[in-house]
Amino acid sequence: MNNKSNQPLFITLEGSEGVGKTSNLEYIKSLLDGAGIEYIETREPGGTPLGEALRNTLLGEDFKGMSDDTELMLMFAARAEHVAQVIRPALEQGQWVLCDRFTDSTYAYQGGGRQLDMDRIAGLEQWVLGDLRPDITLLLDAPVDIGRERAGKRSEPDRFEQERDAFFNRVRETYLARAKQEPDRIKVIDASKDLDNVQSQIKEVFDNLI
Amino acid sequence: MNNKSNQPLFITLEGSEGVGKTSNLEYIKSLLDGAGIEYIETREPGGTPLGEALRNTLLGEDFKGMSDDTELMLMFAARAEHVAQVIRPALEQGQWVLCDRFTDSTYAYQGGGRQLDMDRIAGLEQWVLGDLRPDITLLLDAPVDIGRERAGKRSEPDRFEQERDAFFNRVRETYLARAKQEPDRIKVIDASKDLDNVQSQIKEVFDNLI
Repeated sequence: MNNKSNQPLFITLEGSEGVGKTSNLEYIKSLLDGAGIEYIETREPGGTPLGEALRNTLLGEDFKGMSDDTELMLMFAARAEHVAQVIRPALEQGQWVLCDRFTDSTYAYQGGGRQLDMDRIAGLEQWVLGDLRPDITLLLDAPVDIGRERAGKRSEPDRFEQERDAFFNRVRETYLARAKQEPDRIKVIDASKDLDNVQSQIKEVFDNLI
Repeated sequence: MNNKSNQPLFITLEGSEGVGKTSNLEYIKSLLDGAGIEYIETREPGGTPLGEALRNTLLGEDFKGMSDDTELMLMFAARAEHVAQVIRPALEQGQWVLCDRFTDSTYAYQGGGRQLDMDRIAGLEQWVLGDLRPDITLLLDAPVDIGRERAGKRSEPDRFEQERDAFFNRVRETYLARAKQEPDRIKVIDASKDLDNVQSQIKEVFDNLI
């Protein structure tokens, strides 16, 4: 352990479709490995066998017409399991946690995208997480049309990826508004730049951490 | 419609294992049919395709070690879907709703049985249901050993039925405490009596309703 606070850190990666989360996650792992940091890598929705089953329920086609409240409750059910079985135990054992999406996604997608009441989400967040929050969040940000274009080159879109541009504009705006509210935690990375540039932005955040 | 309030009623049936919910549900349906009341019959956890899938997750063996918070969130996720897709639409169309288990089960099993904080359950109840509550709840009550004996004659126990007597004693006590707090809504039926006697107790409640 050699970060400034001497405590294991809970790092989350956020962003909309096509902003390059997957490739930049690999880069973040290389930075952690390079610094000799012990960490686990996990993701949401998912991260546990039950969470992965719920991920299929949430992203697949079988229950496409589920109500927005149901979607939100399932996200937090998966998160409750993830926190209890994976995230808290890892942090307690001194391991860092690198998580692909966390509660900021819920604010962005269910709050911004689906326009659910942010206060209700905050209530559930408090209910499920108590005082657990990410220590640092890397927000990969790019205009919706750029993300769309990149994501469009991939395979079949999931239940969220099928949403329209207006939805993703609200997702992006919500992320950016949260970053503005919590600038110490949420670091905005300009993901519209080329990969080298994005990685040097990420490295700068890490150099300040470690 | 010919109940005293002239509004469709939301009726729930509650009780621990082996108190005779299944056979008494049939009796209640015969009373509703006899009075010419239009109603739907449903159950929890379940009542929707997604809810039934979550029921399998909750009652089955695949995710036996899930955390208590996860269990509670999944119960309310299934309930959110059930309320949005089935219960509210039926009531709005003037149909009565007869539901095998509802939120009182959550207080009894997760609150009493698993000893989760009742205030946290109340918070979720308010979050998911808003002002929707059952109009009348029939609580089939019997000492745990009687229920155990009757339930033991059935097939494989599910994840809840495998719990110990201390768990079911807390379930029963919680149900009875709630009935004491809300005597107008929750009618305690002494289910330790023989079937004829139980049915006449149920009929008495109905005669006061209709």
